[in-house]
Amino acid sequence: MPPNMPSPASKLYWEDFTPGSVMEYGPRRVTREEILNFAAEFDPQPFHLDEVAARPTMLGGLCASGWHSCCILMSMSADGFVLNSSSMGAPGIDEVLWPAPIRPGDDLILRATVLSTRASGSRPELGFVNILLELYNASGTRVMALKAPLMFGRRTAGGAA
Amino acid sequence: MPPNMPSPASKLYWEDFTPGSVMEYGPRRVTREEILNFAAEFDPQPFHLDEVAARPTMLGGLCASGWHSCCILMSMSADGFVLNSSSMGAPGIDEVLWPAPIRPGDDLILRATVLSTRASGSRPELGFVNILLELYNASGTRVMALKAPLMFGRRTAGGAA
Repeated sequence: MPPNMPSPASKLYWEDFTPGSVMEYGPRRVTREEILNFAAEFDPQPFHLDEVAARPTMLGGLCASGWHSCCILMSMSADGFVLNSSSMGAPGIDEVLWPAPIRPGDDLILRATVLSTRASGSRPELGFVNILLELYNASGTRVMALKAPLMFGRRTAGGAA
Repeated sequence: MPPNMPSPASKLYWEDFTPGSVMEYGPRRVTREEILNFAAEFDPQPFHLDEVAARPTMLGGLCASGWHSCCILMSMSADGFVLNSSSMGAPGIDEVLWPAPIRPGDDLILRATVLSTRASGSRPELGFVNILLELYNASGTRVMALKAPLMFGRRTAGGAA
């Protein structure tokens, strides 16, 4: 655990996120069944639904929808730190990358890196945490990454950080 | 239907996407039950799960997770044009915005605007379609937007577009 990582026992406010700090969570197993269920509901392209159809594609076999990867990342973030925080959501996502496929049976690690923080200019009760969220499989291959401006409540509204 | 919109009856290849063309699909009703089910599985923050907890937040009431919005957009895109195309997925997403909440009972319209296209430099069998995908509610308020480089197979691999 990096020395500047906030203690998971105390509720996290905007002031607790330090640029450069890194948090890791998981592993989280991805099953074939959940890949198929998610694809059937939201992204029924053949390479997310059918092993035989997926094999000759660029993806080389069945893999999770990129949107499923995002949802797994959100779920791991919620369990890891968001639900134990003053999270106020996010206005959007700066960038999403899916550099390698997520396969049935993969065990994923979530790495959260605080890139920068800034107080809101218009809302003294909140601040932004620009965060890099990455998923790695057990081989250490990065399978997804995103950057987002997360909003958190401040411990001392409008006070010095 | 704009005049340069590809006919939905024929399978779409990269060559069929013309910069400036606009496609619209929907409406698609979002139910309270699916908002709650999605949140419970992937994004269990109080403003996506609990009407009373959501009321005093910035969001002003229960609303769909931003990731749920993405999944609905994907599902509408699949039904609208992706499943009737030579889609090869996407390497990522350039930007996601959630400018206004999606509420239980909202009827959403998907608008897809082709921004630009380019052939792949390294893979003659595919090309990129830079697309803007937007969801609007029945009041005409834009509730989400994303830009992505979608990959489609070419009708004539490596041929002139």
